Amino acid sequence: MIKIGIVGGTGYTGVELLRILATHPQAQLTAITSRKEDGVPVAQMYPSLRGRVDLAFSSPDKANLNACDVVFFATPHGVAMAQARELLDNGVKVIDLAADFRMQDVAQFEKWYGMEHSCKDLLSEAVYGLPELNREKIKKARLIGNPGCYPTTMQLGFAPLLKAGVIDAGNLIADCKSGVSGAGRKAEIGILFSETSDSFKAYGVAGHRHTPETIEQLQTMTDKEVSLLFTPHLVPMIRGMHSTLYAQLNQDISNEALQALFEDAYKDEQFIDVMPFGSHPETRSTRASNMLRIALHRPGNGKHVVVLVVQDNLVKGASGQAVQCMNIMFGLAEETGLQHVPINP
Amino acid sequence: MIKIGIVGGTGYTGVELLRILATHPQAQLTAITSRKEDGVPVAQMYPSLRGRVDLAFSSPDKANLNACDVVFFATPHGVAMAQARELLDNGVKVIDLAADFRMQDVAQFEKWYGMEHSCKDLLSEAVYGLPELNREKIKKARLIGNPGCYPTTMQLGFAPLLKAGVIDAGNLIADCKSGVSGAGRKAEIGILFSETSDSFKAYGVAGHRHTPETIEQLQTMTDKEVSLLFTPHLVPMIRGMHSTLYAQLNQDISNEALQALFEDAYKDEQFIDVMPFGSHPETRSTRASNMLRIALHRPGNGKHVVVLVVQDNLVKGASGQAVQCMNIMFGLAEETGLQHVPINP
Amino acid sequence: MIKIGIVGGTGYTGVELLRILATHPQAQLTAITSRKEDGVPVAQMYPSLRGRVDLAFSSPDKANLNACDVVFFATPHGVAMAQARELLDNGVKVIDLAADFRMQDVAQFEKWYGMEHSCKDLLSEAVYGLPELNREKIKKARLIGNPGCYPTTMQLGFAPLLKAGVIDAGNLIADCKSGVSGAGRKAEIGILFSETSDSFKAYGVAGHRHTPETIEQLQTMTDKEVSLLFTPHLVPMIRGMHSTLYAQLNQDISNEALQALFEDAYKDEQFIDVMPFGSHPETRSTRASNMLRIALHRPGNGKHVVVLVVQDNLVKGASGQAVQCMNIMFGLAEETGLQHVPINP
Amino acid sequence: MIKIGIVGGTGYTGVELLRILATHPQAQLTAITSRKEDGVPVAQMYPSLRGRVDLAFSSPDKANLNACDVVFFATPHGVAMAQARELLDNGVKVIDLAADFRMQDVAQFEKWYGMEHSCKDLLSEAVYGLPELNREKIKKARLIGNPGCYPTTMQLGFAPLLKAGVIDAGNLIADCKSGVSGAGRKAEIGILFSETSDSFKAYGVAGHRHTPETIEQLQTMTDKEVSLLFTPHLVPMIRGMHSTLYAQLNQDISNEALQALFEDAYKDEQFIDVMPFGSHPETRSTRASNMLRIALHRPGNGKHVVVLVVQDNLVKGASGQAVQCMNIMFGLAEETGLQHVPINP
Repeated sequence: MIKIGIVGGTGYTGVELLRILATHPQAQLTAITSRKEDGVPVAQMYPSLRGRVDLAFSSPDKANLNACDVVFFATPHGVAMAQARELLDNGVKVIDLAADFRMQDVAQFEKWYGMEHSCKDLLSEAVYGLPELNREKIKKARLIGNPGCYPTTMQLGFAPLLKAGVIDAGNLIADCKSGVSGAGRKAEIGILFSETSDSFKAYGVAGHRHTPETIEQLQTMTDKEVSLLFTPHLVPMIRGMHSTLYAQLNQDISNEALQALFEDAYKDEQFIDVMPFGSHPETRSTRASNMLRIALHRPGNGKHVVVLVVQDNLVKGASGQAVQCMNIMFGLAEETGLQHVPINP
Repeated sequence: MIKIGIVGGTGYTGVELLRILATHPQAQLTAITSRKEDGVPVAQMYPSLRGRVDLAFSSPDKANLNACDVVFFATPHGVAMAQARELLDNGVKVIDLAADFRMQDVAQFEKWYGMEHSCKDLLSEAVYGLPELNREKIKKARLIGNPGCYPTTMQLGFAPLLKAGVIDAGNLIADCKSGVSGAGRKAEIGILFSETSDSFKAYGVAGHRHTPETIEQLQTMTDKEVSLLFTPHLVPMIRGMHSTLYAQLNQDISNEALQALFEDAYKDEQFIDVMPFGSHPETRSTRASNMLRIALHRPGNGKHVVVLVVQDNLVKGASGQAVQCMNIMFGLAEETGLQHVPINP
Repeated sequence: MIKIGIVGGTGYTGVELLRILATHPQAQLTAITSRKEDGVPVAQMYPSLRGRVDLAFSSPDKANLNACDVVFFATPHGVAMAQARELLDNGVKVIDLAADFRMQDVAQFEKWYGMEHSCKDLLSEAVYGLPELNREKIKKARLIGNPGCYPTTMQLGFAPLLKAGVIDAGNLIADCKSGVSGAGRKAEIGILFSETSDSFKAYGVAGHRHTPETIEQLQTMTDKEVSLLFTPHLVPMIRGMHSTLYAQLNQDISNEALQALFEDAYKDEQFIDVMPFGSHPETRSTRASNMLRIALHRPGNGKHVVVLVVQDNLVKGASGQAVQCMNIMFGLAEETGLQHVPINP
Repeated sequence: MIKIGIVGGTGYTGVELLRILATHPQAQLTAITSRKEDGVPVAQMYPSLRGRVDLAFSSPDKANLNACDVVFFATPHGVAMAQARELLDNGVKVIDLAADFRMQDVAQFEKWYGMEHSCKDLLSEAVYGLPELNREKIKKARLIGNPGCYPTTMQLGFAPLLKAGVIDAGNLIADCKSGVSGAGRKAEIGILFSETSDSFKAYGVAGHRHTPETIEQLQTMTDKEVSLLFTPHLVPMIRGMHSTLYAQLNQDISNEALQALFEDAYKDEQFIDVMPFGSHPETRSTRASNMLRIALHRPGNGKHVVVLVVQDNLVKGASGQAVQCMNIMFGLAEETGLQHVPINP
C-alpha cells in the first residue's frame, strides 16, 4: 500500500483525489491537511464521502507528511514550492497539482503567476506529468508538476501534428471551453449559480497563464517556432472541457493519413480515445472518468485541420492525471484505480 | 461469472445497467437486445462506453437469452410479462425494471398502466425487489419486480415510523422531486432542454402510478389503513431524487427516539445512510452511486416529523437496485460492483 | 415623473428594480447608493443595463435621498429601519424590500432576524405590501414592508380557502421551492454554480423566518388558530418559485366550488392568473414578469386540496411587487411599467 | 395599426414573435396558423401568453393571410417559398425567418438545404434583412430573408474589419456557440435535457449551412476572396449566442484604430453595443433583448484580432431582427416594441 498525504484537500481537485483514491486498491490515505478545517471530518464537509473516507482534516503542523510515500498538493499556486524540498529530503515523492513545477522558464512563471519562485533549484529535476508524452521521465521522477487542464488538451491534440511536421507551428489557434468547476471552490460572485448559469462568455482573451505552459511543451515537439493563440471560455456546466484546435496544413496530406498520425501516436494509450474521423465528441462522454477523446475534421477538405478534444477537467485535466502519474512512479499498472466508466446521462 | 442479458438497452436504465455491469467483477454481459438498433455497437450509440462494452445490440429474435443466468428488462411496461414465462421455464432468472411485476393487485395495475396483465399467474411468485425491506424473499426469488424510483424513497423513509406505529398511517404526504432522466430517453417535446431547464413544475398531481405501488407495500408494515398523498415534481437536473415526507406523530416521542428508529432499522445497510438529525441531504451526495441518504426533522418540535430522502433515481432508484437484487439472488456480497463513490462536484 | 432613490442597488432585487424602472414611463431614477461601488457606473457593473441606465452608484452620504418622492431599500435586513424615519420626516415614501417592516410582532422579528428592532414606533403605520390582499391600506401608506417571496405565494394560495373557512387552519403544509437567485448576490460557497447545479436540497426545515411572517398574515384571515409547516427547497434554476400547498378540507365541497373561490377572489387582479382546475403551472410561465399563477388539485377526490402557486421570485416575489405598491401609492394604474410578457423558452 | 399574420407559430421563433408583438404598440396580430393545432388557443399551448394573446391557431386554409399587411414565416425551410408569391400579389409584405430568401445563389441553397428552390424569380427582389448593413434596401423591400442567427454575429463582427481592408479576408475563423433553443422545438432525442445539460459539443464541423450564407454577404464587403472556417457548438443554456471571431491583421494598426472602426461603424445603431476594448461580454447581457454586443481583443498585441460577439439567438438572431425589419419597412421608429431590457440574472 502506498501511504498518501494530501495538502489542501478542501478544493475540487482535492475532493476529486479523495473520490478516486477511496477505491484505489493500493492507496492508503494517511493525512489530509487544511488549516481552516483542522479536526473536521472530511465526510462532514463532503457528505458524498460518508462511509468512504474516515479521515479528518488536520492542520499542516500536525500532519506527519514526512511519513508518506507521496504527497499531493491540491493547493493554490505557491504552496508546493515552499514544502517540496523538505518532503523530497525525507524521501517523499511530490505531485503538485498547481503550477509551481510545470514550467522550466522561471521568468515566465513569475510574470504570469505574480510571485517569486522560491524553489528554483528543484525545477531542473521536476518532471512535467503528462504520461502520454512524458512517461519515461515520470517513471523516475521524485517531483511532478501536474499539467494544467487546458494544456493537457492542447498538447495531446496538437502533438501528433506538430511532431509529424504537417502543420504550420507558427499559427496555432485553440478555442477552449471549460466547465465552472475549473474555476475552483472559492467564494466569488463571478462563479455563483445565478451569475454563470444559462450564460456563456470568454475570459482572459488578452492572455492566460496556460499559454506559456503549453508553448513551452509544444516547443519540444518541433524545430519551428511555435505561436499559439489560446482563448478560454466558461460553459454553464460543472465538469467538462472541450478544446477546438485549429491548425493550417503545410502540405498535401490525406484525411486518412492525418487520422493515422493520431491512431499511431495513441494506439497503446488506455486513456486516449481517437474517435472515427469526423466525430463530434461530447464532454459528457468523459464525465467523471480519466478518458480524453479526440476527433479530427477537415472542413471543406481545405487547408485547415480541426482537432476536437474533450476530457473531464477534474479527472484527466487534474486529479486523475495526478493519480496516473503516481501509478507510473510506483510501478503500478497505469490504470489502477482509474477505471471509472463515464457517467451518462 | 454470471451470464447476463439485457432486453431493451437503449434507454437510461439500460445504459446505466451497462455502466455498472462494465466494472462488476462477476458479470459477463452476453446479450443486449434492441429491435431498432440491431447490429449497432453499443459503444457507437453511447460513446461513454467506448472501450468498455464490446457488444452490439441484437434484435430480440437473434439473441439467445435462454442461455443467460439472468435477464434484466429495461423496457417499457408490458414487455417483461410477455417474455418472463419462457425465460423462467429455461431456468433464467428475471429482473424487470418496469412495473409488470411490482404490484400484486392486478386491478390496480391494469387501471394505472392501461393494459391487461398477460401473465397474472406469475405474480404470486414475483418478489418486490427492495432489498432493505425484502431481502430474504429476494434471496430465493426467480422473478423480481424492481421498485419504482419514487416508491423506493417513500418506503425507506416511512418504514421505520410505520412499523413502530408512531405516526398516523392515514395521513401521509410525500412531496417528491425528480431529475429529468426519470422521464426516460424519449423523443418528447416536454423533456427538451429548452422546455425544462431553468423551470420547475409539478405533474401528475391528481394521481400517479407510483401511489398504488407504494401503498401496497406500506400497507404490509402496519395494521392501520394507509392513506398517502403523493405529489411528483420535475427538477431541472439530470439525475437525483429528493422526497420530502410529512407524517403526523400519534404520540409523545423524543427526537432521539425517532432518530434511533431509523438508525436501528438500517444499521447493517451499506446503501442507506441515516444522517445526523436535522441534516439537509443534497441529491448530489448520491450522484451516480447506489447510496440513499435519510435525514429527520421535527419543525418547531411539533406534531409533524419530516423525513428527507435522497437518491440517484437511475441507480438506487433503478439499475443499481436491480444489480443489488442480482447480487443477492446469486449469493454474492451485496455491494459487489456497486461501490461507486458519489460524484462531487 | 416620480423621483426615485434606491438604497443598495447592487444585489438581485436592486438590479431587478433597475430593469423594471428603466422602462417605467413615470419613473425618474435619481439616486442609487452603494458604499462599496461609489462612483462606479451602474452599467459597468451590470452590462445588461448599458445604454439604459446612465446613473452611477454613489455612497449613501453623497446621495440626496431626501429629494426623492420614494426610496426603495434593496438592502440587507436592518438598514431600512435606521433610515426610514428621516426620509418619512422629509416627506419621502419608503418601500423596504427587506424584512424590517413586514412583521408587527417585534419579538418574532427579533427572534428570527437576530437583531434589535431600532424603529419600533414606525411599525404601527407600516403597511404590508401585498396589493391583492391589502390594496386599500397601501393606497394611503407612507411606509411599506414589501412581502417575502415565499410568503407571497403562501398567502395568495391559502387566502381564498382560509377566508371561506373550508379548510383546517391548524394543519397547513407548504412545500416550497425557489430558484437560486433567492439566496441573493453574495460571495458564498453554498450558492456557487458547481455546488448547486444538477442538485436539489431542502434547507431551513427546522424553522425559517418566512413562517412567522406568513402566519401573522394568515391569522388575519380566520378566527381559527393557524398552524403552518413550511419547508423551503433550493432548485437549480436562476429565477422562479413553486409552492405546493396542502390543506385538509373541513367540509363537503365540490371542486367547482373550490375553483370558484379562487376565481372570485382574484377576478379583478391583473397579476394573478387562476388557471383551469387540474393545471400544472411551470415557473417559467412567469419568468421575468409580475405574474403569479395558481392551480387547484383534489387528488383522488379526497380530503385534501392541493394548491400550486408559481411566480418569479425576483418580480412578483420582490421588485415587481414593490413597483406595484409604488404605482398604487402614487395613484398610477397598477400595471404601469409592469406589463412584461414572461420569457419562454 | 399593422395587421400581422404568422405562419407556423408553434416553434420558438414563433412564440418569441408573439412575445414581442404582444407589447408592440403598432402591431395587431390577426392570424396565426398551425395545421396541427387548428383551433387551439395560443395561450393554451403557451401559458406564458395567458391574458396577453387571445388568438387561436387556425389551419392555413382558414386563415385570411391576404388581408394582412405583413406575414412572418416562422416555419421550416421551404414553406415561405411556396406561399410568398400569392401574398406579394395581394400586397402583403413577407418576412421569412427561414432560409428560403436569404441566399441569392440558388445552387448553394439547393446544395445545403437539400430541396429545389420553387420560387427563384422572387430571389432577385428579396432583401437580406440585416438592418445595420442593409437598411436602405429593407426600407423599400416587399420580401425579406431574415438572417440566420450565426450569420448575424459573424457579419456584424467582421464587417468593419473587412470593409476597412485591415484583415486577411482569405483566412477568417469563427468559433461560435449557441444555446439549445437554436435547435428549435422538435421532438428529438439529441436536444433532450438529459442529453444536453451539463455537457458541451461541436456539431456540423465538416460544413454548416450558415457558412455559404455568411460568405455571400461578407463577399459584398471586400474585393478580396473571402474564406471562412465556421465551427458551431452547442451550449447547455436555453438562449444566447457567443461568436469568437479570429482574423489576421494585414497591416500595422493600433488597438485604438481598430476600436474606432467599430465605434464609427455602429455609432448610430441602437441595437449594437461596442463595448470597451478588452471586454468580455456575457450572452446573458443580451438575454431576451434585441441587443448585440461586441468587444475587441488583441492577444499579446500580435497579428490577430479577436472579436467577441454576443446576442440572444431568438431575438437579434431571429424574431427581434424580423420585427426590426418590419419597423423599417413600415416607417416606424426602428426600436418600436423592441426596447426590452436584458434579463439579469
